[in-house]
Amino acid sequence: MDAGLRVNSSRLELHLDRLASLGALPDGGVCRLAFSAADKEGRDYVEARMRALGLEVRIDRIGNITGIRAGRSSGPVVMAGSHTDTVATGGRFDGSVGVMGALEVIETLNEAGVRTRRPLAVTDFVNEEGARFTPDMMGSLAWRGDLTVEEARRRVAADGRSVGDDIDRHGFAGPFSPGSLPLHSYLELHIEQGPVLEQERRSIGVVTGVQGIRWIGLQLRGASSHAGATPIAMRRDAAYVAGGVVQYARKLSAEIAGQRATVGSLTLSPNIVNVVAEEARLTVDLRNPDAGRLHEADERLRRFVAEAAAAERIDVRSRLLADVAPVQFDPAVIDAIEHSAESLGYPALRLLSGAGHDAQIMAAACPTAMIFVPSRGGISHNTGEFTPTDHIAAGANVLLHTLLALTDKD
Amino acid sequence: MDAGLRVNSSRLELHLDRLASLGALPDGGVCRLAFSAADKEGRDYVEARMRALGLEVRIDRIGNITGIRAGRSSGPVVMAGSHTDTVATGGRFDGSVGVMGALEVIETLNEAGVRTRRPLAVTDFVNEEGARFTPDMMGSLAWRGDLTVEEARRRVAADGRSVGDDIDRHGFAGPFSPGSLPLHSYLELHIEQGPVLEQERRSIGVVTGVQGIRWIGLQLRGASSHAGATPIAMRRDAAYVAGGVVQYARKLSAEIAGQRATVGSLTLSPNIVNVVAEEARLTVDLRNPDAGRLHEADERLRRFVAEAAAAERIDVRSRLLADVAPVQFDPAVIDAIEHSAESLGYPALRLLSGAGHDAQIMAAACPTAMIFVPSRGGISHNTGEFTPTDHIAAGANVLLHTLLALTDKD
Repeated sequence: MDAGLRVNSSRLELHLDRLASLGALPDGGVCRLAFSAADKEGRDYVEARMRALGLEVRIDRIGNITGIRAGRSSGPVVMAGSHTDTVATGGRFDGSVGVMGALEVIETLNEAGVRTRRPLAVTDFVNEEGARFTPDMMGSLAWRGDLTVEEARRRVAADGRSVGDDIDRHGFAGPFSPGSLPLHSYLELHIEQGPVLEQERRSIGVVTGVQGIRWIGLQLRGASSHAGATPIAMRRDAAYVAGGVVQYARKLSAEIAGQRATVGSLTLSPNIVNVVAEEARLTVDLRNPDAGRLHEADERLRRFVAEAAAAERIDVRSRLLADVAPVQFDPAVIDAIEHSAESLGYPALRLLSGAGHDAQIMAAACPTAMIFVPSRGGISHNTGEFTPTDHIAAGANVLLHTLLALTDKD
Repeated sequence: MDAGLRVNSSRLELHLDRLASLGALPDGGVCRLAFSAADKEGRDYVEARMRALGLEVRIDRIGNITGIRAGRSSGPVVMAGSHTDTVATGGRFDGSVGVMGALEVIETLNEAGVRTRRPLAVTDFVNEEGARFTPDMMGSLAWRGDLTVEEARRRVAADGRSVGDDIDRHGFAGPFSPGSLPLHSYLELHIEQGPVLEQERRSIGVVTGVQGIRWIGLQLRGASSHAGATPIAMRRDAAYVAGGVVQYARKLSAEIAGQRATVGSLTLSPNIVNVVAEEARLTVDLRNPDAGRLHEADERLRRFVAEAAAAERIDVRSRLLADVAPVQFDPAVIDAIEHSAESLGYPALRLLSGAGHDAQIMAAACPTAMIFVPSRGGISHNTGEFTPTDHIAAGANVLLHTLLALTDKD
């Protein structure tokens, strides 16, 4: 009987639209940086929708919001989750599709009067992006106990404010301890944020794992001097070495299989046209699905930086800002997703995730896998991010039927 | 009788110290950005010293301060000048040595009761550095009539404030029109801001000209996308092209004789670790004493930017932020400086200036040349800038005797 259930795609689109109006940017994008006032508005919308659907809402001390739907039996819950924070110039789909898709699944079950065996839960994790406060995936890390709430609260943004300041200022925290709910399994519906599904003309991605991530923060210190009067040989130009790192990142991407290396953040000081830069602060984002190759990229980068800096007499301080090992998802959950997509008639493809997700953190807590839907042009972390509603609804239907399968599974 | 005159080096050091205490930075440097409150404090100090020396003070509508000492005849004046604004992390010598040195010359003449034939004047030009508002050498450009006060007042800083706002806010302006004083000749005492005099063990540089300067502002626009999920081939990474420009500037410096090329300012947007940069704004400072080679560097740079940007599908907008042709100083004034240094027994060297100065603007208004004193380690535009007092006093003595020679010259 449940095999005929489908989500209401118009209703899902409506709620995604309403969520996107909170923190909306003029060009159709969204800015709901983690722990900001706009982020809180978005989360209030999620919480209100959970309550309207009759879910038992639990907010934990880091701000994760979980809505629980009772099952015929008590015990471990089958959870679907994602996030609603965005980067500064983000789109309306990254994260939001997973949270609003899961809540649409709940409403579909409510309407059909389906009572599952295991309880279901939907979680909106805080600060998945890490765009304002590191580490990213802060909410799921706290859920799994790898980051204490106290440690998280001490994290400071570039503007000097701490996570704790902003949690208290906007009222993000609830009374629960993160991760106090026993889990049977975890599912996450998300946009691909890459171009593969679109190119291969598939509407569903069955995600088998997530590539490893290392973020390296570099502080390069030379000496400021006059751009006109200082001979090149006497310079200690931090910008010159930083420019070399930007170029070398691209070289690593070309030379190591599966490697992606990006300098997304770079700040010079004093940053004046006619002054040789005294300091450069930059980050390198390294990703590879293979742990050994990721390590190789990291080693080669550090060697390059040391040599380039020594040649320019630049002092280097480096910090590992994030270090996430590649993750393999659970074979049984992967199979369940693939089976749901097949039975619904959606063309599906197994693939790896290029981006980090809460699911890779949750994978160590319980059997986990992810469902991807296509991103137009592979574009994400950009206000031009777009996924058509029919793809989103397909993903939500796969989520629905995979949740139903898991809730009956032993 | 006047041949035995020497400045009082302790008094000169004292006034330089006092001026350096205004806008002082904790590490001994100075921040008196043009048209700031600290800049006004410095200029008030200069004005007060002019009045104490009995000079007739004229402040013009852009804020240039001129102190005039009457001669035995009226007619065109022999002027010594420089500036007292600094870069954000500047030293206490750049500019200040020229203004306070010239005022020490006036006090020395006053004490000795010397009445020159022509009138003498000392001018403290506004905004020589251009660190907050372009163009640099704004005060001397206004003096010469190449920039109207109205145009200058409309110039806007990165923080959105205009020159006009800050002139009015702090009261920089006086009633005079810039450049209304007829000039016989112009002299400027300045630190070298480069390493040549120190390496050659000379205390006096006889400056024969100033290298040409071009400042090119580049706005590179690509598309922001996810650093993990976007394949390299699909990226439009503005940071990557910017990094290439930084490296190419160094290549130009190596391949074109006399060329210096510097990227001192570079800003990414959105500047986030895991987002491919949508936009990079950067500047390239090109300098060469040869106009043809400077043009070649500019052409090659533009060609490189166009090709690198096309390969990454980046849109480029470029603006010429400054364009100062190489300048040859007046042979007679150069000879007068060299003769003064010789007669005083100071080891002197003819050289070109690597930095821009008000003197290169004034060179088109009247016969002009400059006197350099050594900079320790060639370091300038840096809080570690240093010139020993004996070198500064030597420079002031050469200024004194060159002024005396010019004031009697036809």
